[in-house]
Amino acid sequence: MAVGLEIPSVLYPVKGFKLGIASAGIKKVGRKDLVIMQCAEGATVVGVFTRNAFCAAPVLLSKEHLARNTNIHYFITNTGNANAGTGKQGLKAAIDVCQALADATNLDKEAILPFSTGVIGEPLPVEKIKVAIPEALNDLKEDNWLKAAEGIMTTDTTPKGASIRFQHEDKVVTVTGISKGAGMICPNMGTMLGYIATDADVAKPVLQALLEDATNKSFNRITIDGDTSTNDSCILVATGQADLPTINQAQGEYYDKLKMAIFSVAMELAQAIVRDGEGATKFVTVEVNGGKTHQECLDVAYAVAHSPLVKTALFASDPNWGRIVAAIGYSKLEQLDVSKVDVFLGSVQIVSEGERAISYTEEQGSAVMQQAEITIRIELNRGQCREVIWTTDLSHEYVKINAEYRT
Amino acid sequence: MAVGLEIPSVLYPVKGFKLGIASAGIKKVGRKDLVIMQCAEGATVVGVFTRNAFCAAPVLLSKEHLARNTNIHYFITNTGNANAGTGKQGLKAAIDVCQALADATNLDKEAILPFSTGVIGEPLPVEKIKVAIPEALNDLKEDNWLKAAEGIMTTDTTPKGASIRFQHEDKVVTVTGISKGAGMICPNMGTMLGYIATDADVAKPVLQALLEDATNKSFNRITIDGDTSTNDSCILVATGQADLPTINQAQGEYYDKLKMAIFSVAMELAQAIVRDGEGATKFVTVEVNGGKTHQECLDVAYAVAHSPLVKTALFASDPNWGRIVAAIGYSKLEQLDVSKVDVFLGSVQIVSEGERAISYTEEQGSAVMQQAEITIRIELNRGQCREVIWTTDLSHEYVKINAEYRT
Repeated sequence: MAVGLEIPSVLYPVKGFKLGIASAGIKKVGRKDLVIMQCAEGATVVGVFTRNAFCAAPVLLSKEHLARNTNIHYFITNTGNANAGTGKQGLKAAIDVCQALADATNLDKEAILPFSTGVIGEPLPVEKIKVAIPEALNDLKEDNWLKAAEGIMTTDTTPKGASIRFQHEDKVVTVTGISKGAGMICPNMGTMLGYIATDADVAKPVLQALLEDATNKSFNRITIDGDTSTNDSCILVATGQADLPTINQAQGEYYDKLKMAIFSVAMELAQAIVRDGEGATKFVTVEVNGGKTHQECLDVAYAVAHSPLVKTALFASDPNWGRIVAAIGYSKLEQLDVSKVDVFLGSVQIVSEGERAISYTEEQGSAVMQQAEITIRIELNRGQCREVIWTTDLSHEYVKINAEYRT
Repeated sequence: MAVGLEIPSVLYPVKGFKLGIASAGIKKVGRKDLVIMQCAEGATVVGVFTRNAFCAAPVLLSKEHLARNTNIHYFITNTGNANAGTGKQGLKAAIDVCQALADATNLDKEAILPFSTGVIGEPLPVEKIKVAIPEALNDLKEDNWLKAAEGIMTTDTTPKGASIRFQHEDKVVTVTGISKGAGMICPNMGTMLGYIATDADVAKPVLQALLEDATNKSFNRITIDGDTSTNDSCILVATGQADLPTINQAQGEYYDKLKMAIFSVAMELAQAIVRDGEGATKFVTVEVNGGKTHQECLDVAYAVAHSPLVKTALFASDPNWGRIVAAIGYSKLEQLDVSKVDVFLGSVQIVSEGERAISYTEEQGSAVMQQAEITIRIELNRGQCREVIWTTDLSHEYVKINAEYRT
């Protein structure tokens, strides 16, 4: 029941980046649950990872390999098992998977980044993964993005991908990415995974900064239920095969075009995760303007987005503005003057100077709330900062998925 | 469907404190929805109030009256309408209610504290309340606690009260209190209200400190859904009619006994609110030991208590420990060494040194989770501090109550 989300129609291949899919039988026999991605020689790879202190073994290992090795060649991703909360055994399992792929490709195991998503606390079935590696390697193709997007799904209902091409000088540059969903899925614990590749050539520090900027405006601005996963990872690859000069600095026309393309792909992938949030029936944008700092805009936005009362009202299409102002009120802003706060549902002003707007009618509010895509705009009127985040409602289906499913 | 909560069997009267109940017809005809409480001459009154920036008009006015007047004589409480988000008109309405009661009792309006609970953003029906004031005044009795506990209910399923007597020297001292529920009730917005009275004689600064200490260990340690109401108020009255000396300092045997009694009543009232939380099927204690600071213990406890994934697992009686460790992991403790963390469900150790305990079996976890009252104990093993909070699960009924009900 994803909100306004369809199977991606076009995912352009990226020169120098191949994807291969296989069935390892981790949870279900025959399910495509293993994805290997290959970066050509000379590619630059950067990543950002969960800040959860209980981060999973593959996260620890990927961070270590990225820090120690500038020559990353393969990513290996399994679904069905998060390899989190598994301690030393889990770390050994992740190393064993990397070693198996290294043996099959004649590389050092530090050239490989492992990723896992699925149930927490259960041992990773390393042998099943090892057996399926050759199948995935044989399947490596540049045109396999959609199959890979399906291969990394857990309880996602729809594969998620985004792709952009732009022209620079006489060359075409491609940015393509896939992601999987964040409802803390699976049902034990979810994982947000994102992989984006471009054939542009970008120096590593510039690429790292680009990824951090892009995730801060996209993946780090979405919330389904406020639960930060143990496995969240987002990877950006620049293969350098577009036959254009290396981008060494965060400036210039070419950089700006690439940045726009990467931001746009990251945004589409992040929003796709929200649209496919567990039990989601609404896609909700929370926009906070006029804060003194970006952080206080985020504090207000997340207070509203995480309020179970606001989320159930959204599910019920109930323009229950009292819950929105209450959430703003407890978001802990210093010396908030509530008599300056305005709130809009779509284009309808519901609160003016801290009180119900005189012009507001319940019918206007209901009409907005009936829509599948809703914007809540909050004007704090105390500064110049602005932040936007995206979230979902809280439905019966969310409780059902998370209470009743169990592997 | 309150968890382990019955109608209070004994609520001892407090000398010098009377309660009267009436029907004002605010939401339903015939419903007892107006409660007046009277403090005898010489009583000392202190209060603590919500920190929500959008606090309601009666909260603003009660704080003002308490600050300006040491001679508080009456509390007037209506259900069915929170008089919040109502701006200047709402403040005028609260003043008008105080003035009407002042006129009827020949007092200054600043001798009166107003309280409201119910729907946000609708005008308070002042005339209905005015008309019902004589009925409530005629009903004033020391033995009316249970009727008053029923009179302040909104979507509470059970009236909440607690009462303790202790002996000091040759005299009996009574502490009795009532409260109403906090599920952000009503369905627009809830209110936690608590009223506690004793016939001990206590100097105002000592009484204020006692109330703040007591609420910090009780009402400020409960959470249903993390939504802090606009109307939360807790009042403590010392009538001084127990015929014992005035307590002027926070020390001594008599003070200690009174403190224990007040803490115990506040705790029972606070826990009653959780037991009757909207849709609650479980009463959950979250205990965090071994933190460096009290605040970090609270951060971990609230991360676990507010996690929708932990709450749905509790509803499902699913010992889904991965969700608990993930919540600990994202609670933002500086430099948390997860390899020192232990987690217990009841007496069953589920996590040892950051991994699933070797001794743990799913059957043991399931047995604990089937119970209606569950303790999650987290040992951080990095300091000496400890905090305990109480919460509920997240059930279908919670979504139903908050999505589908609407006045």
